[in-house]
Amino acid sequence: MNVTVRGRTRHHRTVAFDESHNAVVLIDQRLLPHEFKLVRTRDFRVTAASIRDMTVRGAGAIGATAAYGLAQGARAFRGRDIAKFTAHVGLVFELLKDARPTAVDPVNAMLQVRARMRRGATIAEQQQLAMAAAHEFADEDVAHCEAIGRHGAKLILNGTRVLTHCNAGWLAFVDVGTATAPLYAAQARGRKFHVFCDETRPRCQGATLTAWELAQQGIAHEIIADNAAGHLMQRGEVDLVLVGSDRTLGRTGEVANKIGTYTKAVLAHRHRIPFYVCIPLSTIDWNLRRGLDIPIEERSGDEVLGAWGAVQSSRFKVQGSRFPRRAFVRIANPASRARNPGFDVTPAELITGIITPAGIFKPRDLWRERARLGGTR
Amino acid sequence: MNVTVRGRTRHHRTVAFDESHNAVVLIDQRLLPHEFKLVRTRDFRVTAASIRDMTVRGAGAIGATAAYGLAQGARAFRGRDIAKFTAHVGLVFELLKDARPTAVDPVNAMLQVRARMRRGATIAEQQQLAMAAAHEFADEDVAHCEAIGRHGAKLILNGTRVLTHCNAGWLAFVDVGTATAPLYAAQARGRKFHVFCDETRPRCQGATLTAWELAQQGIAHEIIADNAAGHLMQRGEVDLVLVGSDRTLGRTGEVANKIGTYTKAVLAHRHRIPFYVCIPLSTIDWNLRRGLDIPIEERSGDEVLGAWGAVQSSRFKVQGSRFPRRAFVRIANPASRARNPGFDVTPAELITGIITPAGIFKPRDLWRERARLGGTR
Repeated sequence: MNVTVRGRTRHHRTVAFDESHNAVVLIDQRLLPHEFKLVRTRDFRVTAASIRDMTVRGAGAIGATAAYGLAQGARAFRGRDIAKFTAHVGLVFELLKDARPTAVDPVNAMLQVRARMRRGATIAEQQQLAMAAAHEFADEDVAHCEAIGRHGAKLILNGTRVLTHCNAGWLAFVDVGTATAPLYAAQARGRKFHVFCDETRPRCQGATLTAWELAQQGIAHEIIADNAAGHLMQRGEVDLVLVGSDRTLGRTGEVANKIGTYTKAVLAHRHRIPFYVCIPLSTIDWNLRRGLDIPIEERSGDEVLGAWGAVQSSRFKVQGSRFPRRAFVRIANPASRARNPGFDVTPAELITGIITPAGIFKPRDLWRERARLGGTR
Repeated sequence: MNVTVRGRTRHHRTVAFDESHNAVVLIDQRLLPHEFKLVRTRDFRVTAASIRDMTVRGAGAIGATAAYGLAQGARAFRGRDIAKFTAHVGLVFELLKDARPTAVDPVNAMLQVRARMRRGATIAEQQQLAMAAAHEFADEDVAHCEAIGRHGAKLILNGTRVLTHCNAGWLAFVDVGTATAPLYAAQARGRKFHVFCDETRPRCQGATLTAWELAQQGIAHEIIADNAAGHLMQRGEVDLVLVGSDRTLGRTGEVANKIGTYTKAVLAHRHRIPFYVCIPLSTIDWNLRRGLDIPIEERSGDEVLGAWGAVQSSRFKVQGSRFPRRAFVRIANPASRARNPGFDVTPAELITGIITPAGIFKPRDLWRERARLGGTR
């Protein structure tokens, strides 16, 4: 999407590739929203490190980064021994996979690239095929998000007030995003609407990433405390809720997403406000039989006990830095601990529809429509 | 309640009075939870300033501070002209009232003190009566909270898991608190239970004040993001919700309280978890006919866009301070704004009971029982 830095607007993807320098080009998401900076990784080891240290995060974005990283590693090989080349590619694969060991997207993306490479007879052919397959993976990610936007845009009219939770935006994918895709598509159709961004404690991806995205695209928005959504719904100030999903159960229509999503669904249901979940097909789990079996990551309590931000007080000076950088402040009582479940599960009965690249479905219809939705069982 | 500082445990009230030095003694709540410090105001002007600058906050606590401030001002008068004395007391009254112009508690407390003073014929008698009336106001505040504790303690058994929101604790009153009173009473009866403290964004009174209170009393507790309560209820990990109230409508049983209270009530209702509101009788509004008419304060968006905390990063050094003090960090996207309603209204249908010093009532029974509850119409 477009980013304006010092008055100059340019289009950027979250993840791109510079073939002439064999470099992956990433937006450094650790610095957002306080600073916009591109990072160029010229070596697959650095690319893996950028996945590990969260320079790039988000399911689609790390998938594409791994796909490009594998092509980058293949293209860096110097030699004529195809057995050695294959062993080298295997090492690159493992290194990129280990950067985020629990994530499934990098593995799926790299399997797609490696399957294509095998069609090549020579090292040079395989290198070319890897490059093409990585580009194709990234382009498909964008095409899927654009399709979600086309289907979802019809829900957003002039004056619609949308509530979002967390960030399933273009920064989490190669471009466009999922929960944000209908917003960008509606904007492209000339519609004027308003977005409330849940700040999404504890990591505040709504206040930082989603708000930054919307501000860059010039979409009217306000950040709210997670506590305020119920009040706004009660007063009739919310017309539509759009969220993403980390895992959607194809058999039941249950949706696992960032902690707090379930709460917003319960509130929307009480106030008869449409609640839609935007997903790429890759996040549908066709195996698991009930949401209770989805493992809920218990994250470090430190995230709840404080917050990252740019220091504003003039009483603090940064050592060796030109301007205030991010610092972690401890908000909570020093002697107290926190409980920090990272995700929750929303039952199908609270979900109005699931917006996919293949159209909008009732959550309980996913299983019947599994042939269209990539389910193989 | 008890406070332990450097291994030494002492009982403190939030607001006390030192007669020999004519000083109001306050816990400086601006420094909590990072530092415990008592402030002694030896002049009524300083007492008023301590209300204004939030050294002391909370309905009962600022009421008692104003009552003591009025007695302090009366006792500071030097002269024999009773007309001048009465004029002086009037000025003290206005100064203390203006310290928090929208709060009703300081005014009610001072009216009580002034009514008692009028029984005295001489300046000395009136000074003595003011002192006695201020002490009585503070003692009554404590007695009311203790009565709430006695009634509410029966809800908390061994193993009960309680959710709280914001701080209606002893720091908001002279001692004991309202929503915390049943906890302290149950603890005194030897019961072992667990408390989840909503951090209560944007001002985080749950993570700072309530967690500090519970830690000081040795009550097992964990802080959670406001987003996590729904997930914990869904998994059967919450047995009881206890909150306070800023205003309760005697005619309808509706409760205005800190933003996010309504959300917790909706979630508790869905999961059939008892939801109780703890109130002193002074917060019942017998006039207003519907919750929609309660004015909801729209506070500065800055509270949502960042957070106060103790700076942890070693990259920051405090100028001229022995240890890291509090700083405000900007969390959110710099170009974005926030909406910040400070309170919400919970309808009677979501409230299991209202715990008052006079017993526990169904919210819709308040009006019928108004004679017992201090309603005069």
